Amino acid sequence: MADRIKLSFPDGSIREFDSGVTGKEVAANISEGLARMAVSISLDGEIRDLSRPIDRDAKIKIFTMRDPEGMATYWHSSAHLMAEALESLYPVVKFGIGPAIERGFYYDVDLGDRSLGPDDLVKIENRMAELAKRDVSYERREVSKEDAIAYFTEKQDEYKLELLEDLQDGTISFYSQGDFTDLCRGPHIPSTGSLKYTKLLNIAGAYWRGDQDRKQLTRLYGITYPKKKELDEYLEMLELAKQRDHRKLGKELELFTFSQKVGPGLPLWLPKGARLRDRLSEFLKQEQLKSGYEPVVTPHIARLELYKISGHYPYYSDSQFPPMMEDVEKDEGYLLKPMNCPHHTQIYDDRPRSYKELPIRYAEFGTVYRYEQSGELGGLTRVRGFTQDDAHIFCMPSQVKEEFKNVIALTLKVLSALSFTDFKAQISLRDPENTEKYIGDDALWNDAEQAIREAAAEMGLDATEEMGEAAFYGPKLDFMVKDALGREWQLGTVQLDYNLPERFDLTYIGDDNAKHRPVMIHRAPFGSLERFIGVLIEHCGGNFPAWLAPVQVQVLPVGQSFNDYAEQITKELLLSGLRVECDLRHEKVGYKIRSAEMQKVPYMLIVGEREMANHAVSVRRHGDGDLGGMSTTDFIALANREINEAIGAS
Amino acid sequence: MADRIKLSFPDGSIREFDSGVTGKEVAANISEGLARMAVSISLDGEIRDLSRPIDRDAKIKIFTMRDPEGMATYWHSSAHLMAEALESLYPVVKFGIGPAIERGFYYDVDLGDRSLGPDDLVKIENRMAELAKRDVSYERREVSKEDAIAYFTEKQDEYKLELLEDLQDGTISFYSQGDFTDLCRGPHIPSTGSLKYTKLLNIAGAYWRGDQDRKQLTRLYGITYPKKKELDEYLEMLELAKQRDHRKLGKELELFTFSQKVGPGLPLWLPKGARLRDRLSEFLKQEQLKSGYEPVVTPHIARLELYKISGHYPYYSDSQFPPMMEDVEKDEGYLLKPMNCPHHTQIYDDRPRSYKELPIRYAEFGTVYRYEQSGELGGLTRVRGFTQDDAHIFCMPSQVKEEFKNVIALTLKVLSALSFTDFKAQISLRDPENTEKYIGDDALWNDAEQAIREAAAEMGLDATEEMGEAAFYGPKLDFMVKDALGREWQLGTVQLDYNLPERFDLTYIGDDNAKHRPVMIHRAPFGSLERFIGVLIEHCGGNFPAWLAPVQVQVLPVGQSFNDYAEQITKELLLSGLRVECDLRHEKVGYKIRSAEMQKVPYMLIVGEREMANHAVSVRRHGDGDLGGMSTTDFIALANREINEAIGAS
Repeated sequence: MADRIKLSFPDGSIREFDSGVTGKEVAANISEGLARMAVSISLDGEIRDLSRPIDRDAKIKIFTMRDPEGMATYWHSSAHLMAEALESLYPVVKFGIGPAIERGFYYDVDLGDRSLGPDDLVKIENRMAELAKRDVSYERREVSKEDAIAYFTEKQDEYKLELLEDLQDGTISFYSQGDFTDLCRGPHIPSTGSLKYTKLLNIAGAYWRGDQDRKQLTRLYGITYPKKKELDEYLEMLELAKQRDHRKLGKELELFTFSQKVGPGLPLWLPKGARLRDRLSEFLKQEQLKSGYEPVVTPHIARLELYKISGHYPYYSDSQFPPMMEDVEKDEGYLLKPMNCPHHTQIYDDRPRSYKELPIRYAEFGTVYRYEQSGELGGLTRVRGFTQDDAHIFCMPSQVKEEFKNVIALTLKVLSALSFTDFKAQISLRDPENTEKYIGDDALWNDAEQAIREAAAEMGLDATEEMGEAAFYGPKLDFMVKDALGREWQLGTVQLDYNLPERFDLTYIGDDNAKHRPVMIHRAPFGSLERFIGVLIEHCGGNFPAWLAPVQVQVLPVGQSFNDYAEQITKELLLSGLRVECDLRHEKVGYKIRSAEMQKVPYMLIVGEREMANHAVSVRRHGDGDLGGMSTTDFIALANREINEAIGAS
Repeated sequence: MADRIKLSFPDGSIREFDSGVTGKEVAANISEGLARMAVSISLDGEIRDLSRPIDRDAKIKIFTMRDPEGMATYWHSSAHLMAEALESLYPVVKFGIGPAIERGFYYDVDLGDRSLGPDDLVKIENRMAELAKRDVSYERREVSKEDAIAYFTEKQDEYKLELLEDLQDGTISFYSQGDFTDLCRGPHIPSTGSLKYTKLLNIAGAYWRGDQDRKQLTRLYGITYPKKKELDEYLEMLELAKQRDHRKLGKELELFTFSQKVGPGLPLWLPKGARLRDRLSEFLKQEQLKSGYEPVVTPHIARLELYKISGHYPYYSDSQFPPMMEDVEKDEGYLLKPMNCPHHTQIYDDRPRSYKELPIRYAEFGTVYRYEQSGELGGLTRVRGFTQDDAHIFCMPSQVKEEFKNVIALTLKVLSALSFTDFKAQISLRDPENTEKYIGDDALWNDAEQAIREAAAEMGLDATEEMGEAAFYGPKLDFMVKDALGREWQLGTVQLDYNLPERFDLTYIGDDNAKHRPVMIHRAPFGSLERFIGVLIEHCGGNFPAWLAPVQVQVLPVGQSFNDYAEQITKELLLSGLRVECDLRHEKVGYKIRSAEMQKVPYMLIVGEREMANHAVSVRRHGDGDLGGMSTTDFIALANREINEAIGAS
C-alpha cells in the first residue's frame, strides 16, 4: 500500500490521498466541475502544474480561471503557444522572456531584420488556433544546467543562455508542448485545447533586460480566452478604454497638460481641470469637516532635520527629489516633502495634548513630490507631484476601531457620490511567524488587527486579508474600486503607525495624569487627486456628474440676434452659482450643440425667438436629448435638484 | 544788485529770488504758516536744511511735519538731541549711527560697562526736554577729512572714525547744537525748540555695522512730537499695536505656529488659522470667478530650463532656495518656484491663441518660496513660503486700461468687505531721461502709463506717481492700505510686463491673421495671504468679521444637564453651514463666556432650562453683549444676514 498524505484546503478541511496524487486528481475528488475548470494549484504557497505528483502533507489551493492565479497560468501557457507559432512561421526567431501580465501575456522576441505587420499578426493568430486544436499537453521536465546549456547552445538562443547563467543548478525545468520547448519555471495548464480564441493586440519595442544599452527586442502582446464571448467582451472593453483614456480625454476636454520645461510628471491644470479639481476637493473638504476633521496647511518643504528624525532622509533618496543644500559639509538644507505626516507631527507637538482632545484629525490637501523614474510617468496615474487627500489621526489605541469605521464610512459615502459602486478592501496583517520584524508589542498588534477586521466587517466592506503584507510600523487597509469597464484600481490607504509617534516622541496626558504615546493613522482614501481624477475620467468617460462638471451649462443662441438674451441668461445662471459658458460664435446652432456634446457639458440651453419672448430656455441634457422648454427659474431648480441629490446635500 | 535765481515749485509755478536765499525765507515768501511748519526742503531731489543758502536755479519742495520727509528731518534732529543728553549724562559714551526711522529715531551707542534701566530712560527724557527748551539752532559746517579725523580722534570715538574712513574728502559736514557736534550729512530742523515731547521706547542690542563678529552696541529707540496730544496718541496706538501684534494674537487664537525642524519663515497653519485662510481664499476665488478669471493649478517646482528662459536662474540665487540638482555638470535640475508667472506662460503656450480669446486671466493661489535672510523673518509679514493671490492676464496692449480698471475694482470691493476703507496707490513710471534702461518701445510705454493713470482716475483711486520707479520690464501700480491704527501697509501690485512674453516667445493670432505679441499683467492685489492675514489680524485686533471668523458661533450650556440640548443645537447650526463649536466643559457659564470672549468668537449662544423648553437660544454678540433670546431658526437667519451683507452676497 502506497504512503498516504494529508492535504489541507482553504476552508480548513483535510483530506487524505495516496502519495503521488496529482492536482487534477485532487480536484476530481472534490467535483467533476472543479476538475474541468482547474488550471493550477498552489502547494504551501508554490504555484504548480495540475499534473505534478504531490508526495507530502501540505496546504493546497486549486485555481480555476475565476482566480487571478488561474488566469495567469492560462496566459503564461498562451505565451508558450505563441512562441511555438512564431518558431514555426519564422525559424530565425530567438526568445527573451514571455510572461503573463494582468490581462493577457507578451513575449519579447528577436526576429533579426524582420518586422511584423498587421497581416503577420493575423497569420500568427491563425497558426496559434491550429496549434491549440491539437490539444497537446504541456510537459514538465527537470534538467541539469549542463543539458539546458547544451540545448540552447544548439538552438543558438543567446537570450535563454544568458538567463540560464543566472540560475542555480538543480532548479531548472523545461516545458514542452508539441514541437516547442522552453526554459520555464511553470506552471502551465494541462493542454493547449482550451486556448481557443486569440487576439494579438500590440507590438512594442523593449530593451533586453530593460537596459537601454542592449538590443531592442520586439514585444508582442496577446490575449486568449476559452470562450468567444469572453474575448469579444474584452476587446470591446479595450476599445472603450481607448476612447476613455484619460490622457486623450484630458487633452480633448482641456483638463490638464504637461510642459517639458516644467518637467515630466508635473501636471499643469488647465482652467477646466482646475475647476474640476477645486470642486472635487471642496466636496471632500466639506465631507471631512462634517466627519470631524480639522484643516491644517503646511509648507511644501522642511529642513533635513525633520526628515532625519522621521527617517525619510538620507534614506529613500532614490524616490525623492535631490535636497536643497545650504551647507553640504554640515548636511544642512531642505527637502521637498515626500509626505505630509512629519509636518503634521509638528502641529500636534505645538503644545501639550490631553486625552480629552483625542482623537485629533488633521486634514490637508497636501501636495507632495516623489521622484518616480521617468520611464514610469504617463498621464495622471503616475506623476512626480501630486496632491493627497491626506489626514493624520492622533488617537489612543482604544480608538482605532472607531476611527477606521469613520474613515470607511467617509470613503464609501464619497465614492458613491462619484458613482463608484463596486469596491473592496485588503487588510494587510503581520507575518505571525516573523513578529520581530515589526515595531510595537504583540498585544498592540493583535488588538489593532482585530479592530481593523471588525471595523471593515461592521461597515459591510468586502475585505480580504493578507498575512505578512503589513508595513513594519503597523497594519493597514487598502481600498480598491472597480470602474465602469470592470477594471480594478487600487486607490488609497488607511495605515496604522506606531513608528512616527515614537520617533517624534509624541505624547498625551492620560486620565491618570501620566504621559502616554498616541498612535497615528495615516489616511488618504483616494490616494491622490491626480490619480483619482485619472481613474474618474476613465470611469465616466469624461461625462462627469453635473455637480462636478467644469462647465455645467452651455447657453447656445440660435443666431446673433439672440446673443444679448443669451448673455443675460448666462449672467442669471452665474449668479445662481452654476458654472456656465455662453457660445456666441457666429455658427449654426447644430454646430454649437455638437461642440457642446463633444465637451460633454451636462446641460445645453438653446435660446431663440420663442425662448426670448417667454423669458425661457429650451433644455437639452447631454446623452438624454431634448427636455423641452422651461423658465430659467425652473431650469435652475432642476439643475440644483440634480446636483444636490447626487452629493447628498440637503 | 545780487544775482537772481529761479525756483520751480511742485505745482509748476516759478518764483525768482536773490541768490543766497534760504529755504526758510522761501517758505516765508509763500506764507507765514508754511514758514512756521517747514522743517526742510529738497533741491533737485537733495534734502537740505531750511537755513542753507540757495544759489542756483532748481526745483524746490518745502517739507513740513505733514510730509514723511519732514518728519524724518524732525526725528533725525531728535536723535542728535538724545545724543547730546547722553553725552552730558554719561561722558564715556561713544556714538555709532543715529538715524530717523519710519516712526521716531534711534541711536546706537557704546556705554562701556554701563547698562541702562527704566530710571535712566526717564533721566534722559528729562535732560532732552531741558536741552530742547534752550531752543538753540542746528549749525551746519563743512570740514576737511583731516579736521574731522582730528576732532573724533580727540574725542576717542572709534566708531565715527571708522565711518569717516569710508567717506570722500570734501563731502564731509558736521552739525552742532549746544555742546554737541556730530558727523552728519543732514539736514536738520532750524532749532531744538520744537522737540517738546519725548518718549524713549525701547532698548535693544545691535551689532556694530550689523556684523555679528563685532561689538554689540546699545540701541536706544525714541519718539518726539511738538504737541503733547500727538505723543499721547502715538503711545496709545503703540499700546494697541502691541495688544494686536499678530504674532501674539496668532498664538492666543491658535492660528499659526512655527517649528525649528520645519524651518524659519515657514508657517504651519493650525486648524483655526487654516479655516480662516481657506475662507479668505474661497471668498477671493469666488470674486475672481465673477470677474472673469479662470483658475489654474501648477506645481511648486520646475526644471531649471524654465528659469533659464525666464531669467530667474542662475540670477537672483541669493533670494531663492538652492536648486535641486540632478546633474551638476550639465546644470540640470529643479528649482522651487519663486513666482508663478513662468508656469502660467506654459499654460498660455499650450496651444495657439486667437485675439478673440483675449484677455485670458489665469488665477492661482500659488505658494512660492523665497530665501529671505533669516534675520528678517518674523511672524507672517516676512516669510520664506507664502501663497500669492496671483493671476496673470494675457492681453492686447489696447486692453491694458480696461484690465487695470477691473483689477482696481476687484481690489476695492474685497478690501471693503474686510473693512479696509482707507487705501491709496502709487503708480511707478519710467525715468523719462533714461528710456534706454527699459524694454519695449516708447509709444508702448507712453500708452501704458497713460492707461494706468486713467484707470486709477476713473476708478476714483487716490494715486501718486513716481518717476523712475518702474521695473525695466513695465510700469506698475502698488496698493497701500491704512489700518485701524493708522499704520500704512504696502500690499500687492499690478505690474505690466513686456519681458516675459518676449522671453517665452508668446504670441496670438490677430484679426489680421498675423502673429502678435501679447502683454502680460502680473497682479496680486494682496501680495500674499500670509502677509495680508498678518495685517488683517492687527487691523481688526483678532476680531474677524463673522463671515471670516474661524469659529463663528460657540454654544455654551449653563450646566451639564443641558449638554445634550447644546449638542443638538450645534448640529443644527453645523448643517446650516455655520462654523460652530460647543463648550461642554464642566465649568461655570461665566467662565465659558470669558473664554469665548478671549477667543473672539462673534456669537455666543447660551442654553439652559428656559432655552431648552422653547427650543431657543440666548444670543450674545462679541463686543455688543446680550441680544436676548430667539429661536435657532431666527438666529441662523440673523447670522446669515450679517454674513451675507458683509461680503456683498445676495
